[in-house]
Amino acid sequence: MSHLTQNLIGKKALLLVLADQEPEPENGAVMEKLPWRYCLGKVGAMEAHKVVAAIETAAKKNGIINPDVYREIHALYHAIVEAIEGVTRGQIQLGSVLRTVGLRFSIIRGNPYDTPEEGEWIAVALYGTIGAPVKGLEHEVVGLGINHL
Amino acid sequence: MSHLTQNLIGKKALLLVLADQEPEPENGAVMEKLPWRYCLGKVGAMEAHKVVAAIETAAKKNGIINPDVYREIHALYHAIVEAIEGVTRGQIQLGSVLRTVGLRFSIIRGNPYDTPEEGEWIAVALYGTIGAPVKGLEHEVVGLGINHL
Amino acid sequence: MSHLTQNLIGKKALLLVLADQEPEPENGAVMEKLPWRYCLGKVGAMEAHKVVAAIETAAKKNGIINPDVYREIHALYHAIVEAIEGVTRGQIQLGSVLRTVGLRFSIIRGNPYDTPEEGEWIAVALYGTIGAPVKGLEHEVVGLGINHL
Amino acid sequence: MSHLTQNLIGKKALLLVLADQEPEPENGAVMEKLPWRYCLGKVGAMEAHKVVAAIETAAKKNGIINPDVYREIHALYHAIVEAIEGVTRGQIQLGSVLRTVGLRFSIIRGNPYDTPEEGEWIAVALYGTIGAPVKGLEHEVVGLGINHL
Amino acid sequence: MSHLTQNLIGKKALLLVLADQEPEPENGAVMEKLPWRYCLGKVGAMEAHKVVAAIETAAKKNGIINPDVYREIHALYHAIVEAIEGVTRGQIQLGSVLRTVGLRFSIIRGNPYDTPEEGEWIAVALYGTIGAPVKGLEHEVVGLGINHL
Amino acid sequence: MSHLTQNLIGKKALLLVLADQEPEPENGAVMEKLPWRYCLGKVGAMEAHKVVAAIETAAKKNGIINPDVYREIHALYHAIVEAIEGVTRGQIQLGSVLRTVGLRFSIIRGNPYDTPEEGEWIAVALYGTIGAPVKGLEHEVVGLGINHL
Repeated sequence: MSHLTQNLIGKKALLLVLADQEPEPENGAVMEKLPWRYCLGKVGAMEAHKVVAAIETAAKKNGIINPDVYREIHALYHAIVEAIEGVTRGQIQLGSVLRTVGLRFSIIRGNPYDTPEEGEWIAVALYGTIGAPVKGLEHEVVGLGINHL
Repeated sequence: MSHLTQNLIGKKALLLVLADQEPEPENGAVMEKLPWRYCLGKVGAMEAHKVVAAIETAAKKNGIINPDVYREIHALYHAIVEAIEGVTRGQIQLGSVLRTVGLRFSIIRGNPYDTPEEGEWIAVALYGTIGAPVKGLEHEVVGLGINHL
Repeated sequence: MSHLTQNLIGKKALLLVLADQEPEPENGAVMEKLPWRYCLGKVGAMEAHKVVAAIETAAKKNGIINPDVYREIHALYHAIVEAIEGVTRGQIQLGSVLRTVGLRFSIIRGNPYDTPEEGEWIAVALYGTIGAPVKGLEHEVVGLGINHL
Repeated sequence: MSHLTQNLIGKKALLLVLADQEPEPENGAVMEKLPWRYCLGKVGAMEAHKVVAAIETAAKKNGIINPDVYREIHALYHAIVEAIEGVTRGQIQLGSVLRTVGLRFSIIRGNPYDTPEEGEWIAVALYGTIGAPVKGLEHEVVGLGINHL
Repeated sequence: MSHLTQNLIGKKALLLVLADQEPEPENGAVMEKLPWRYCLGKVGAMEAHKVVAAIETAAKKNGIINPDVYREIHALYHAIVEAIEGVTRGQIQLGSVLRTVGLRFSIIRGNPYDTPEEGEWIAVALYGTIGAPVKGLEHEVVGLGINHL
Repeated sequence: MSHLTQNLIGKKALLLVLADQEPEPENGAVMEKLPWRYCLGKVGAMEAHKVVAAIETAAKKNGIINPDVYREIHALYHAIVEAIEGVTRGQIQLGSVLRTVGLRFSIIRGNPYDTPEEGEWIAVALYGTIGAPVKGLEHEVVGLGINHL
């Protein structure tokens, strides 16, 4: 039976996205010396598909997933949509219900289980604000999606 | 126009629930010296209503909300349900679709905006695992709900 | 092209369910002299299926639908579920997310369009309260479902 | 423990929106002499965000909410979205699934509970038709959202 | 009590949409000699309303439904939306969450029950692919909606 | 770039579940000589978790998935839930909204893409009836869930 190790992929993705700065290679307390691939980014949008696209683009550019392999894109896509569900809480809709988001995101690819058969997983974390399309009329939101690669 | 201050209620609720131990009064780096009320707890359940009840009970016991005022219960209830939506991602269902959760939760009551008119808000953060009702067959989840009190 | 007549089936169902007393045959201002069949009832429940069952039973007992014809049961069922969606607003869940309802319901069967081809339709209206399973911790809710018979 | 008074904010909002004319100050049977603020309006749209915007604009123009206080906008926003869920019954989508709405709306701000601690609440009621984007191919819908302010 | 006959309207609609070619009148093994009306079509879209429109247009052009009778349009509309829910599995969204579909559809109008009181029903079946807006990055999907006419 | 081959895993799963009998090894026209693993089963239930459990048990017993590897259970679980969404169309609820299902299911594990990097995928197809908990008061339903393993 497999178990989650101390290298919790979701927790690390959340701490990355909540951190005030991107961790530097030499002292990145969050990512330590794990052989994991990760990246960080930002996106502001009134349309969910722009959030999806921004995260997919970042994952491809930073070599987190192989853009030629559909199974990797499929795994990432579902992790993104699940993370957005935490942000939108109910309906994956932004501008169509007159709200907008400003989000930071992190993506980590790694092996969080203690048995090698579990292979690689991907985590997408989102943190930022949702609100009316007016600066200041907003509150915080978070989302996390995890999938096997 | 009001703006979120540095005292981000959602971020603090998340850092609290992600922390390995409860912050102690004298050195709680997360909560600093804010005049905010907060509490932490744990709940494992196959039924969403037990998660709701555990958080409501903790909020009442720790004086986060006034159990005799419906508007406070109403505000907390919606914050809890929104946090659970991040955990369940689509349908607020656990045992009814054969899955179980083991969660830590934090609740914070405070004033995250820089204008006094915004008054008090409540944040509920959830972090833990979801999975089959077998130890080890699970992955991490997170949720955050924020509401005006 | 067909149009809704002044005999608005949904509005009448709502006015019936909002009225403080059941209209009497001789002076029922709401139902006037329309050759429509209708009934009224009450249900309190923590489980949505009890709401469905109470309305179905009333409709059968009062001759609103023919209990031996599946198309009538199918039409009523969907009208009920749509009305409940107005009450629960998001997830058709009550006790499973720790809330309860106390509802009055009305059912009307009639022909609200000005062309005979449109035939009969059914309307189900719900009005009452939703809240914590404690008296007083609740607010009002409404729902309306309409379907062709 | 607080209880709903006879001044039921949801019922009044529904009766207002169902009334054939706007109640006049001197004889408004629905609103009587309550010190409540309310307004009425109309919106036809194939996009939910136009419904949200029309109601928010009316609430601000008529002084129902303070447009500079986010907590008031947040409370109203959720009441609107909940009312729309009664109208759309399942997915908050109109034109994206090829349907359109023609709605009247009412907004009331008042104190429906018998204890002063419960403070002010807001109710948004919707009534009108939903259907294909062709006149006459439509049926009635209703929605009600209630939130603490 | 009514029962489904061997002339299963849903199964036939699925076999039609899964068949590699349209059945010819003289040897259509799927439709046999049933006095049922049916048609087949194709639609590729990033917007759900285009799927709805394509199916509605085909149904009207092929005489499956009467375009002047709202009850027939209403019945078909709900069958289409239910079939799309099988395709989208959770949220009726395509381009707004950055995905596209390529679908074949079939529509059958007939009487699948053994008692004449059950009258006519309509079935809409969908089969094709969903995926990223890039050829090849997709997997299969299916949906079936059935309603009384 | 990968493409779906003629060995369409979803279509085969649907044809299997729609077939009147299980295909025999020597003449199984549906499965031909593909090196794919598959199984068939039946389940009748008023609770979605029984449908999930029946399919998971069949998959484990027939060696479709490895019961000790969470990533395989995770992949199958999401395929099952997506298939159930086609059956329930909106809310994954059965008895809780007073309806019951009688389903046949098929599970196939195979490689439907023409490039080896795409690896194995799993398809779950459901076909049967949904309706009131009374024999005869029901119509057909279908669902298909596909996931990378």
